[in-house]
Amino acid sequence: MESYLNGEYFQQEKVLISPNDRGFLMGDGIYEVVRSYQGYMFQIDAHMERLSYGAKALHFNRLRFDEIKEITRELIIRNNLIKKDATVYIQITRGVADRSHLFPSADTPLTIYATAKEFFPKLLDIKKGISAILYPDNRWARCDIKSINLIVNSMAHQHAFDSGAQEAIFIRDGYLTEGAHTNVLMVNNQNIITPPKTNYILEGITRKVVLSLCNTHKIPVEERPISEKELFMADELIIVGTTVEITPVIQLNQQLIKDGKPGPVTIKLQRLFNEFKIPK
Amino acid sequence: MESYLNGEYFQQEKVLISPNDRGFLMGDGIYEVVRSYQGYMFQIDAHMERLSYGAKALHFNRLRFDEIKEITRELIIRNNLIKKDATVYIQITRGVADRSHLFPSADTPLTIYATAKEFFPKLLDIKKGISAILYPDNRWARCDIKSINLIVNSMAHQHAFDSGAQEAIFIRDGYLTEGAHTNVLMVNNQNIITPPKTNYILEGITRKVVLSLCNTHKIPVEERPISEKELFMADELIIVGTTVEITPVIQLNQQLIKDGKPGPVTIKLQRLFNEFKIPK
Repeated sequence: MESYLNGEYFQQEKVLISPNDRGFLMGDGIYEVVRSYQGYMFQIDAHMERLSYGAKALHFNRLRFDEIKEITRELIIRNNLIKKDATVYIQITRGVADRSHLFPSADTPLTIYATAKEFFPKLLDIKKGISAILYPDNRWARCDIKSINLIVNSMAHQHAFDSGAQEAIFIRDGYLTEGAHTNVLMVNNQNIITPPKTNYILEGITRKVVLSLCNTHKIPVEERPISEKELFMADELIIVGTTVEITPVIQLNQQLIKDGKPGPVTIKLQRLFNEFKIPK
Repeated sequence: MESYLNGEYFQQEKVLISPNDRGFLMGDGIYEVVRSYQGYMFQIDAHMERLSYGAKALHFNRLRFDEIKEITRELIIRNNLIKKDATVYIQITRGVADRSHLFPSADTPLTIYATAKEFFPKLLDIKKGISAILYPDNRWARCDIKSINLIVNSMAHQHAFDSGAQEAIFIRDGYLTEGAHTNVLMVNNQNIITPPKTNYILEGITRKVVLSLCNTHKIPVEERPISEKELFMADELIIVGTTVEITPVIQLNQQLIKDGKPGPVTIKLQRLFNEFKIPK
């Protein structure tokens, strides 16, 4: 497997990082996971935009990473993933410098690391639905930045797994924010409801695509806060994201959502998303 | 300079980390900075205890790191720091594994990295006092864990520096939590006031030593929430920590604290601390 680090491609096992990398010492970095469908890089420009957004928010010394589009493509080719379903992981950190809370000097190059692997979608989860659990949203106040400070996401996901569930859904001050690696939508009376963009949720790329599809296909969408209580009374509950695409949540904290089956709006969204995701 | 990684000592430039280290990918680790005064490792047992506390809170697969005491001593010796003032940096991450929010398998060894360097105390800051600025405490809700998720601390410290100040003091919901790399004490009418231990502040080792010295020397201490407003009206303001020891804050957001000089309680605490820090 070949990976990319700072301008060069290496066999994965030969990629090595300095312990003085700000990613390693301080979690001082951002990342993206790009989905590739048989070589088609889904929403690649949106991922590039989000990297720029994060780099700006963290005051990185570089805000555009246009070369990453080419690196992503190259990793797909070099790893023989062009005919497969794959994910490309991209991480950018503030670079290597002697440890200090202060930023390194302005000419310190950012670290750019990227790696690709075959992806095996969880088709059964998408078809039959998953279980989720609620988890306190202990994360920082800038979840709109896709940072590598992922301790809480990891703890939450592991807790979900240990509870026999597939996703953890964050609750902050009694209200839904998002999933540990997804955004969350609720359906009530054929209406899609989802929390508005704030500093507490990531602007998910699949979320954006889904809301745009709803707009095109006249499915009503309401962006408003959703209380913990409401989640249990939803007609349908859905997580959306790069890897899960549109996956129904049929059980929450061991309670069935409605009759515990994927609902009609979910199935409609899945159909629309599948038609959209790979251009003909 | 020699550093330590997973059981071996290396020249610093030969220490290399896998990009699959959970520290690099997810900020999934904890750290300590130990102060050595001419080879005397200040409060080393307290640092070991805090590593265990963090490891437990993050559900690491190992909770005791007794060997680190010896590694710390060894790094001081190997780097000819035995007659100098030095800091030893220790970092423990959840180890190396293919990227997943889920924890690696239970037999995955944690990564243990440690490095030592000469330390030059900021004697003038300690004597004359520093400027600080207030900064919104956007960090996660588990600041009692000394994790390497340090984006906010770094951003805050850099912002302080850019404002001509030496420390950023965090305000959460209108109340003081702590400094970006220190705990904060206030003096009013000869009384020490400091926020109580909660999940929002680190139990600082110097803080603990200072409170214990206050107890021994009958200096009254009150642990209670301190509002942002109160900070500006303090008789004295102090930051305490491993590197700053006991440093007066004489200016906050460009406003002088009292007459802008280190106060008598601060000076008394410094004397007590200096007598205590290196056993005779």
